[in-house]
Amino acid sequence: MILTVTPNAALDDTYEVPDARFGEVNRVAAVHRRPGGKGVNVARVLHGLGHEVVATGLAGGAAGRQIEEGLAALGVPAAFTPVAGESRRTVTVVGAEVTMFCEPGPTVTAAEWAAFLARYETLARDAAVVVLSGSLPPGVPPDAYARLTRLAPGPVILDADGEALRLGLAGRPAVVKPNAEELARVSGTGDTAAGIRALRAAGARTVVASLGAGGVVADTPGGALRAALDRPVPGNPTGAGDALAAGLAAGLAVDRPWPDLLRNAVALAACAVRSPVAGEIDAAAVPALLPHVSVRAEEDHAARPHE
Amino acid sequence: MILTVTPNAALDDTYEVPDARFGEVNRVAAVHRRPGGKGVNVARVLHGLGHEVVATGLAGGAAGRQIEEGLAALGVPAAFTPVAGESRRTVTVVGAEVTMFCEPGPTVTAAEWAAFLARYETLARDAAVVVLSGSLPPGVPPDAYARLTRLAPGPVILDADGEALRLGLAGRPAVVKPNAEELARVSGTGDTAAGIRALRAAGARTVVASLGAGGVVADTPGGALRAALDRPVPGNPTGAGDALAAGLAAGLAVDRPWPDLLRNAVALAACAVRSPVAGEIDAAAVPALLPHVSVRAEEDHAARPHE
Repeated sequence: MILTVTPNAALDDTYEVPDARFGEVNRVAAVHRRPGGKGVNVARVLHGLGHEVVATGLAGGAAGRQIEEGLAALGVPAAFTPVAGESRRTVTVVGAEVTMFCEPGPTVTAAEWAAFLARYETLARDAAVVVLSGSLPPGVPPDAYARLTRLAPGPVILDADGEALRLGLAGRPAVVKPNAEELARVSGTGDTAAGIRALRAAGARTVVASLGAGGVVADTPGGALRAALDRPVPGNPTGAGDALAAGLAAGLAVDRPWPDLLRNAVALAACAVRSPVAGEIDAAAVPALLPHVSVRAEEDHAARPHE
Repeated sequence: MILTVTPNAALDDTYEVPDARFGEVNRVAAVHRRPGGKGVNVARVLHGLGHEVVATGLAGGAAGRQIEEGLAALGVPAAFTPVAGESRRTVTVVGAEVTMFCEPGPTVTAAEWAAFLARYETLARDAAVVVLSGSLPPGVPPDAYARLTRLAPGPVILDADGEALRLGLAGRPAVVKPNAEELARVSGTGDTAAGIRALRAAGARTVVASLGAGGVVADTPGGALRAALDRPVPGNPTGAGDALAAGLAAGLAVDRPWPDLLRNAVALAACAVRSPVAGEIDAAAVPALLPHVSVRAEEDHAARPHE
């Protein structure tokens, strides 16, 4: 079983407003409501691919109920710890432009966090891989991801940003999956290679950096690899990072060799980009993409962006 | 008891986003969530003034639950008929500008509407006044307000727009409360007097037109009156119309003479404008405003806007 952890689960609303105008009253033409938060998205992709998965995390209030009802409707097994606060909602207005409004997460009490930890320890024991994803709601210790990594007997994939990522590295996760912006924040420069070195020095065993059209650079104990499509895929990059994380988890769960594992993960991310609905994957389209993913040894200098 | 009817109740969210930007990801600094829809707002004002009130209408889904929980928390008695659909939410983004996004209402089935009618008939029997407010959700007959007016033994105040107002007039409501824009749509011109004549010809016994800073013009069977403040009140006009409707209902319930009734209703609307929170009233401030409301006989020509 693959365990995904979403400490700050969200209810994601998409509002179709073809002629949205700021400073005015806008009628919403259509509303799409779905459970979200990065770990929940990873669980949905893995479930769609037929993997055994459990989505855990913290959820509360009316939005929390809707997140759990939404996962049940999708058939994704979920085991969230209830919190008294209201889980956050995100509202994405899709018109000529795409505008997103993100509510703050609920404040988690020490008792709620302790209850989650106890449940997590049990779940992690049965997990071939654990995926830790996204932001930490207020009240959760900033080094939570280090603690959760240490508590997991199996390999852990950490997909976070800022302080949650920085402090989480102390737990020595098997894989850290930053994108170019997150790497730049880590290194304080635009230098991808410097960011990767900093993450490994801080505790990451392997760093898989997603560089958009540049594919991914994986810096593993066995050397550096780059996996990329032979041509760019047009579409919506929303959710591609979560699909990549799902691909990495699926590969680690069966201990695939890195080149093979990366080829699959990149093909999966490409499917997410091509999908008309953000984050939804047509699993049947993956095999056709695999031959278009090249995997080769990476020299350090090539790990810089825009090359 | 005063009965307020909100066929299309809403959950009103206000997002504080000081530096809101279209086309970007915006963090919401604070979320304010409250039950809404015009009739619900009228009930809240009446409850705040110490009147016996019952809020009814149709509500469903997670938003419906939150609307009922919110009214319970405010101590406002509610008797909503459940619907399988999801009640609409509105999201108001308050930054440099104020932008509103209104979801469509739930589709109401014939059986749900029939269940509401049966409940309404019982509630209306005990009501000194019935207030019918706002839009009709999909599935509700467009002439619903005519039917609801005929079913009420006591006086009915109708506060609606467009087709719901036009078809509702056939029920001969005691009072119709349009604003200048609604009157313009009725008359097809900017002529307030023509709009008022059209509404009375179509069935309204009395028309109380709210003209913003121009106060209100009441065209009653006993003649026309204008009630206005001696000086404009600075503030937020949101909710002033619902406070005016609450004032009219409170006056009709005790059969106040029109001049006295209008003076109170206009003072109440002014309190709503002065309130820092849209739609919330400081009842204690009403008496001090009463001497500042002039009520005089209205000559027809003066009923034109911008005079």
